[in-house]
Amino acid sequence: MTANAYQSLATRFARIGAIDDAAGILGWDAQTFMPDGAAEGRAEQIAQLRVIAHEILTAAETGDLIAEASDDETGLGTWERANLREMRRAYHHASAVPGDLVAASSKASSHSEMVWREARAGSDFAMLAPHLAETLRLQREVGEAKGAALGLAPYDALLDGYDPGMRQAAIDPLFAELRAILPGLIEVIRDRQASLPTPIPLPGPFPVEAQKALGLTLMRAAGFDFHRGRLDISLHPFCGGATNDVRITTRYDETDATRALMGVLHETGHALYEQGRPATWLHQPVGNARGMSMHESQSLLIEMQACRSAEFCAYLAPRLREAFGGQGSAWDADNLHRLYTRVEPGLIRVDADEVTYPAHILLRYDLETAMIAGDLAITDLPGAFNEGMRSLLGLAVPSDRLGCLQDIHWPGGSFGYFPTYTLGAMAAAQFFRAACEDLPGIQADLAEGDFTAMRGWLGENVHGRGSFLETDELLVATTGKPLGAEDYMRHLRHRYLGEG
Amino acid sequence: MTANAYQSLATRFARIGAIDDAAGILGWDAQTFMPDGAAEGRAEQIAQLRVIAHEILTAAETGDLIAEASDDETGLGTWERANLREMRRAYHHASAVPGDLVAASSKASSHSEMVWREARAGSDFAMLAPHLAETLRLQREVGEAKGAALGLAPYDALLDGYDPGMRQAAIDPLFAELRAILPGLIEVIRDRQASLPTPIPLPGPFPVEAQKALGLTLMRAAGFDFHRGRLDISLHPFCGGATNDVRITTRYDETDATRALMGVLHETGHALYEQGRPATWLHQPVGNARGMSMHESQSLLIEMQACRSAEFCAYLAPRLREAFGGQGSAWDADNLHRLYTRVEPGLIRVDADEVTYPAHILLRYDLETAMIAGDLAITDLPGAFNEGMRSLLGLAVPSDRLGCLQDIHWPGGSFGYFPTYTLGAMAAAQFFRAACEDLPGIQADLAEGDFTAMRGWLGENVHGRGSFLETDELLVATTGKPLGAEDYMRHLRHRYLGEG
Repeated sequence: MTANAYQSLATRFARIGAIDDAAGILGWDAQTFMPDGAAEGRAEQIAQLRVIAHEILTAAETGDLIAEASDDETGLGTWERANLREMRRAYHHASAVPGDLVAASSKASSHSEMVWREARAGSDFAMLAPHLAETLRLQREVGEAKGAALGLAPYDALLDGYDPGMRQAAIDPLFAELRAILPGLIEVIRDRQASLPTPIPLPGPFPVEAQKALGLTLMRAAGFDFHRGRLDISLHPFCGGATNDVRITTRYDETDATRALMGVLHETGHALYEQGRPATWLHQPVGNARGMSMHESQSLLIEMQACRSAEFCAYLAPRLREAFGGQGSAWDADNLHRLYTRVEPGLIRVDADEVTYPAHILLRYDLETAMIAGDLAITDLPGAFNEGMRSLLGLAVPSDRLGCLQDIHWPGGSFGYFPTYTLGAMAAAQFFRAACEDLPGIQADLAEGDFTAMRGWLGENVHGRGSFLETDELLVATTGKPLGAEDYMRHLRHRYLGEG
Repeated sequence: MTANAYQSLATRFARIGAIDDAAGILGWDAQTFMPDGAAEGRAEQIAQLRVIAHEILTAAETGDLIAEASDDETGLGTWERANLREMRRAYHHASAVPGDLVAASSKASSHSEMVWREARAGSDFAMLAPHLAETLRLQREVGEAKGAALGLAPYDALLDGYDPGMRQAAIDPLFAELRAILPGLIEVIRDRQASLPTPIPLPGPFPVEAQKALGLTLMRAAGFDFHRGRLDISLHPFCGGATNDVRITTRYDETDATRALMGVLHETGHALYEQGRPATWLHQPVGNARGMSMHESQSLLIEMQACRSAEFCAYLAPRLREAFGGQGSAWDADNLHRLYTRVEPGLIRVDADEVTYPAHILLRYDLETAMIAGDLAITDLPGAFNEGMRSLLGLAVPSDRLGCLQDIHWPGGSFGYFPTYTLGAMAAAQFFRAACEDLPGIQADLAEGDFTAMRGWLGENVHGRGSFLETDELLVATTGKPLGAEDYMRHLRHRYLGEG
């Protein structure tokens, strides 16, 4: 009976997976090739698919089958059990929120996201405030409803939606460690940086075709499978698409070759995870990537750990020079490495280097946990944001456009997402170190543009495991310890201070 | 109550429409940008969406709501009533076929279509025969099941699925007329053609970029709305996509400028129909195009009636010359018109000119009606096909690859589709003549590349009516008479014999 219930569930979740894949391709198309007049219809198509998937997921029969299958798991193998655990998680998350709250919060988020675009352009926080307040109010309700069903505090319940198993109690000590070390570390790093040669900017222009060709070459080198994916152009780069059909995008700027190139490598890191998910479980929950922290760890591992390393810069520099017909010492590997590891506190999160990036996250984490707890009102957000920028990075925020209006997350209803960026950076350092310890040739390989060993390690240890293990189980199995800040700090001290 | 039932149906069918739109974009992507390794997953995604739409359509509740709404239509306006009629039609077609027959016939068709690709390449009919026989057997069952529910003979029931309201009894006399006239007409036309200057082929090469630019210019001139559609490249040109998002495709050959250019104009005709559907009914059955004959009439009206006319050739010739840097008399309008209206019996349907094209259809219509009636066995198909080609076009078929293996329709399970090509050609002539009688400036406008008046007429009389009228009602309302061969014959005699 249990096996039958499990099989019925597998069929149900395969259908949900196919619908999610369909929505993934429609979403990709909306950002790449869709004509502008199709936007409204496309939103409706995607919304209908989401509703259908939600209906299948939250149907009473799904709950009954999960109860029946969970009642006696003896007939199931370890992967089936893990799959059932992930089905349960998805079911509880989705069914915890009443239908009218789903509709209201989704509508409010869409609306405040729309208002945000205009408010940001005009640096007009007052314009956004009432809509953001409504979005927050509804997200708090969602967090409470999920929390009640999952036995979690509201913020943990929201966090769990992005990063299964992650809790505020686990993040707090990790972030406290960063908070204690980071300001001093940034200062020391900047002092040392000042004593080194100032990096020479690469002289452009950088024709789009040459950028694209080089990007494709590096994707191929990193192991991107073009039989199961593509590179295209969109205003905001992303990794999306569907199972066995991973679509990444970038945006080219003819005055700057670094942004698209490093962006492509970042998205390639996400794509390798998606393309490396366990082949026999692709259409089941256990075959999905483990969560946003782990996903970000894979993009940062490729971009930050591997491709901004001195080794990879040695490989890249002559190829960059050749691609753009570069002359002079700006194109030397040393200068390239200095350019790619330049530390400079700035106002904009997405432009931040890997040393100052966590400061942006610590600030947002403090603010969003306070907002969800009811300890910070929307009207007090700009002041709190600006005060945080002053204390964490020593910067004065000249306008809300460059301050608390810069990110889409909160207006779009995403509370609990921000910490995954920095948790991912920590995990990236931890995975990379473990990989290099297991296979000491990895760094020398990178100097030859050879990702084979590293990709093999990631495929076996991370990608191919999908959601079989919980996040900390995965880290313990792979690196011998749970997620921590140690390897990340060691990485920063090694790269930026020449230690270790 | 009826109004409530109708509203519930409208909501249901809007959801089905959104799913169909989603499948349309996924289908377009599969033919244009999708990486090859994604094919299997994509087939699964589209199949799941089709199953979901089918489940919504055939749900018992849908039937109950239709019965309730149909019970008393007094509260409904004329468009609502027509919408309800189209809902009923869709419901009866879908619910007439038992689920296991739907699955079996769809699976058999997919499989025989796959075998067909290999069998065609090797001109190996014996390889296809058992699979085609199975597909035919199941399509006969589908025809019988639908026929029983709709009160129609099996072939009529299949035909009705492509062309609502069309019947074999209506086609037979029209095709008999063509059969009587066509062979003699072809002979007379070819004799006259032999007395005129032999058209000089346009000397290539024709760079893809120049072909594309000219195609886009002509699409724009014809009224294609690029805010609600695109032109891309695919192996087999088509018009697809979604509501307010019409995707047409072409394929470029640098040695031949005519195929892509006329192909783009043909698909633009389909696209104008889709883009011109009634704005307030876009997501309801009554807002759909009327059926395959009417759809083909719109593509042939643009390509054959308008764009291969002497008037349009006068507009096009200098632009073609400029686009490809052409020199000499090959680029003169007269020569271009002779090239675009060359009559030459050939083996391949899709390459046929508009005079010999109906012969290919008469043959296939005879064969498929006999197959569905059980009067022609698959093993006798090649002989019957070749005999038909001899008697209708005087051609010997050297191999099945160039004979009965050339088309995807039958292996793909499409019986009842072929006649719509020639019914569409008749309707195109009938619409075009009526438009020119209503607005006598249309032909002079075409000589200026101005489609405005013609498009306005089509928009008002055909496109904007969606499925509000049945096919013959539409023709009577628009041209004063039901579908006939008269205007089509008159068109051929005018264009190819200089009569009238």
